[in-house]
Amino acid sequence: MAELETFDNPHPQRDYTITHVAPEFTSVCPKTGQPDFGTITIDYVADAACIELKSLKLYLQSYRNEGVFYEDIVNRILNDLVAAASPRRMTVTGEFTPRGGMHSIVRAEHTS
Amino acid sequence: MAELETFDNPHPQRDYTITHVAPEFTSVCPKTGQPDFGTITIDYVADAACIELKSLKLYLQSYRNEGVFYEDIVNRILNDLVAAASPRRMTVTGEFTPRGGMHSIVRAEHTS
Amino acid sequence: MAELETFDNPHPQRDYTITHVAPEFTSVCPKTGQPDFGTITIDYVADAACIELKSLKLYLQSYRNEGVFYEDIVNRILNDLVAAASPRRMTVTGEFTPRGGMHSIVRAEHTS
Amino acid sequence: MAELETFDNPHPQRDYTITHVAPEFTSVCPKTGQPDFGTITIDYVADAACIELKSLKLYLQSYRNEGVFYEDIVNRILNDLVAAASPRRMTVTGEFTPRGGMHSIVRAEHTS
Amino acid sequence: MAELETFDNPHPQRDYTITHVAPEFTSVCPKTGQPDFGTITIDYVADAACIELKSLKLYLQSYRNEGVFYEDIVNRILNDLVAAASPRRMTVTGEFTPRGGMHSIVRAEHTS
Amino acid sequence: MAELETFDNPHPQRDYTITHVAPEFTSVCPKTGQPDFGTITIDYVADAACIELKSLKLYLQSYRNEGVFYEDIVNRILNDLVAAASPRRMTVTGEFTPRGGMHSIVRAEHTS
Amino acid sequence: MAELETFDNPHPQRDYTITHVAPEFTSVCPKTGQPDFGTITIDYVADAACIELKSLKLYLQSYRNEGVFYEDIVNRILNDLVAAASPRRMTVTGEFTPRGGMHSIVRAEHTS
Amino acid sequence: MAELETFDNPHPQRDYTITHVAPEFTSVCPKTGQPDFGTITIDYVADAACIELKSLKLYLQSYRNEGVFYEDIVNRILNDLVAAASPRRMTVTGEFTPRGGMHSIVRAEHTS
Amino acid sequence: MAELETFDNPHPQRDYTITHVAPEFTSVCPKTGQPDFGTITIDYVADAACIELKSLKLYLQSYRNEGVFYEDIVNRILNDLVAAASPRRMTVTGEFTPRGGMHSIVRAEHTS
Amino acid sequence: MAELETFDNPHPQRDYTITHVAPEFTSVCPKTGQPDFGTITIDYVADAACIELKSLKLYLQSYRNEGVFYEDIVNRILNDLVAAASPRRMTVTGEFTPRGGMHSIVRAEHTS
Repeated sequence: MAELETFDNPHPQRDYTITHVAPEFTSVCPKTGQPDFGTITIDYVADAACIELKSLKLYLQSYRNEGVFYEDIVNRILNDLVAAASPRRMTVTGEFTPRGGMHSIVRAEHTS
Repeated sequence: MAELETFDNPHPQRDYTITHVAPEFTSVCPKTGQPDFGTITIDYVADAACIELKSLKLYLQSYRNEGVFYEDIVNRILNDLVAAASPRRMTVTGEFTPRGGMHSIVRAEHTS
Repeated sequence: MAELETFDNPHPQRDYTITHVAPEFTSVCPKTGQPDFGTITIDYVADAACIELKSLKLYLQSYRNEGVFYEDIVNRILNDLVAAASPRRMTVTGEFTPRGGMHSIVRAEHTS
Repeated sequence: MAELETFDNPHPQRDYTITHVAPEFTSVCPKTGQPDFGTITIDYVADAACIELKSLKLYLQSYRNEGVFYEDIVNRILNDLVAAASPRRMTVTGEFTPRGGMHSIVRAEHTS
Repeated sequence: MAELETFDNPHPQRDYTITHVAPEFTSVCPKTGQPDFGTITIDYVADAACIELKSLKLYLQSYRNEGVFYEDIVNRILNDLVAAASPRRMTVTGEFTPRGGMHSIVRAEHTS
Repeated sequence: MAELETFDNPHPQRDYTITHVAPEFTSVCPKTGQPDFGTITIDYVADAACIELKSLKLYLQSYRNEGVFYEDIVNRILNDLVAAASPRRMTVTGEFTPRGGMHSIVRAEHTS
Repeated sequence: MAELETFDNPHPQRDYTITHVAPEFTSVCPKTGQPDFGTITIDYVADAACIELKSLKLYLQSYRNEGVFYEDIVNRILNDLVAAASPRRMTVTGEFTPRGGMHSIVRAEHTS
Repeated sequence: MAELETFDNPHPQRDYTITHVAPEFTSVCPKTGQPDFGTITIDYVADAACIELKSLKLYLQSYRNEGVFYEDIVNRILNDLVAAASPRRMTVTGEFTPRGGMHSIVRAEHTS
Repeated sequence: MAELETFDNPHPQRDYTITHVAPEFTSVCPKTGQPDFGTITIDYVADAACIELKSLKLYLQSYRNEGVFYEDIVNRILNDLVAAASPRRMTVTGEFTPRGGMHSIVRAEHTS
Repeated sequence: MAELETFDNPHPQRDYTITHVAPEFTSVCPKTGQPDFGTITIDYVADAACIELKSLKLYLQSYRNEGVFYEDIVNRILNDLVAAASPRRMTVTGEFTPRGGMHSIVRAEHTS
């Protein structure tokens, strides 16, 4: 996985929310080897550190040829972002495109 | 009914939600013999087990030639999924297409 | 008014919601004699009895040549459905099409 | 049927189009006795006469308790409007709400 | 301002909500003399009296050539409607069209 | 296949178009045995005969457990309808739901 | 009516189209005295002169307290704009909000 | 930054909300020098002072050639508006257009 | 590139259109190495051969780690599909997601 | 103005269309000094040269602090792009955001 970078929260005295929506997420299904596609939404309240956008883009791109299940993707992204930025609160949501006539949404939350 | 399968929840220590949306549900009206159509949405927090997607698809397909009322479909799906996966919380919603100028929505919830 | 029929709630041990949306409601304005049009939405938790769909359609159709005000329509439908099915909770909403450049929505709720 | 009225075209020297959209059309199915609902769109180039809006509304309302098939409704409205206003060109379109899981559109044109 | 009229609430024993949406509101900016446009939404629970629709339409039309600011319009309409109908609860919302690349929404609430 | 019925075109002297939209079409993939879903749209100018709606619904329903490819479905429906009603012109369109991340549309036309 | 102003077409050697959409048009119904509302769209190819935007806004505003029928509004605006700017081609469209459950569109074209 | 002006709240005795939506915000990325675009939404309950609309427009325009990060823009606007108008409660939201395949939303709130 | 397969056109005597829409296309920008995303639409009239869907999916997936420009992608897909199926007529359209605040569409057509 | 760059058309033997949509265009009104905003769409058939995307972005950005009228913007962009790339055919469209309650669209075409 590409390394996540952070920068100093310019307004740490206030609890404000930052949302990044990444509609160009793609990974590979570990069972069928077929590509999966989805939108990853990250919603958080920063503590000391904010997530740097370009490193987030590269981090998400590093799933491109990885074999991972939906349930795992969302929890792994949440764990990595929490480890990198120690936010006060963070939610990660993955909305995946239809497979076999069904589509799926996975959402996980971290509270400090 | 086709058998529902599960796999181990990869992140059981966290309460996160999984949603599957199946817009290609069809069954048969027990009164008129006419086909019914709808979207089934399953929304749950897994405990030890997650529902395996392919078996869910086959399970829902096994209603194709069954005669069932709307109120019954939603409650039976909920009962079967709860029996198979013992989720911490689960909601099943069925939104059915218009019949006689009216459409119907049925929603049932299970909390452990 | 056509008679409302019910059938036995197949899952009375669970509090689940049933919604019927009827976009083809029409009645007559008692003041002007002009036809009124709207969508009636019924949302309820059944107790022992569920409302039978065909009788509901005929019941709503029996307003076709009746002169009634918006505020009255919604409350009368609620009263009749509560009398017929004794639900645990029921909401009736009427959304009417524009008259004189304004449109109106009336919503009434019954809790047992 | 209520009588259609016309008024003098204020700009007869120019070929311009007039469209009236009536989304509150209702009649009765001659086979089942059930109400039908739809949107009637009238699109024409007036010659000497324009159709008066209030009489058009009352004319369309006079189908409320008539038993007519979709194919007939659209052609009859076209015939009546052509007889009343002798337009240079006229199209009548009826878009009807779903019955038995299908909806229908009928469109007829008159050219002088 | 045109006089607001009321009629007896036909179901005063029940707390139900009535909403009127008026998308054809227009007044004049007191600063520039230019016309303003917006949608006024009135949402209330009647006590003894309901607001009569035609008088409401005429009341809102009487702002057509009045010079008033957005913040004032919404509060004045709320005050006048409360004075006329003494509702149990009422909200008035004004959503105005863009001026100088920005649009504005003002919402005021009265609780008895 | 259920038999298609027709009735006499009430306005055979005029070329007018009739459109039926059937969003609840389902058949079975002959390769995988999995259900397929789609919307069938029939658009025609009747000659002596119009297609009877109820028989059309039953005809389309008789594909429910048939194994047919998309390209074949649309052409077969067109052939059967042309044989039954000898229209002056007819188009059949099938818009199918996504399979493997792609969706397909097939359209065939008959001119007499 | 406020006076329409023009400015020199900066690219008269090329046939290009200019469209102005004015969704805040209001006038008065000459029959009922009630306000009418609509969107006026002007679409033209300039010859020597382009229509100046501010004068167009004031011109359209001068209908605010005028009593005019829909068919007349569109033709009068077209005549006035043609007189002011002598365009190579011009279309004026008025789309009016619902009255008595119907809405109307009038479109007139001028070609030089 | 252009100076923010206020006017006396005409209804200070009531807690009502005022929302201004400015979809034409633009600034410059301090890192790349490239222009950024977004919609700024200001939602507040005035105390003694309301924000004057024209000065708000000019204030937001003064970011046009400023180099600022998303997180900073929203917090700086909130700080400046709170300093100018001392509202009872205020939220500022910035929704920015996609960069590198991701878009971002930042929301900050002030409560007195 | 994965090999494209075809099957015999079941209705070669008729000119009918087949459309496949693939919204999960991804390749790599040859200049920046960054992933590109888009929707590829293929619209054709088959002659003797139809394109087999699964091989089309695999063919499009083989662009996943290829460096290609937008203009090239669309023309190469068209060339390859024409070579494989010799259609009577074919259009390929690529609609790509925004890069640097702009998005692009490329469309190429082959006629035999 | 920033310089426009081109690259060799990789498929000059085929007439295919390339469309670039730039929704982040901004310039300054020469009359009021206020910023203008709009979407510029460029649609062309390349001859020997294709327009390079990054130089197009910088070219459009160089209007940011220029005072230009709508009619002029679209024709100037068309002239500059035609001079740079000598396309077989090109259309430039500018859709601008509302000013004074009206919005405008300007479209110019070049054919070689």
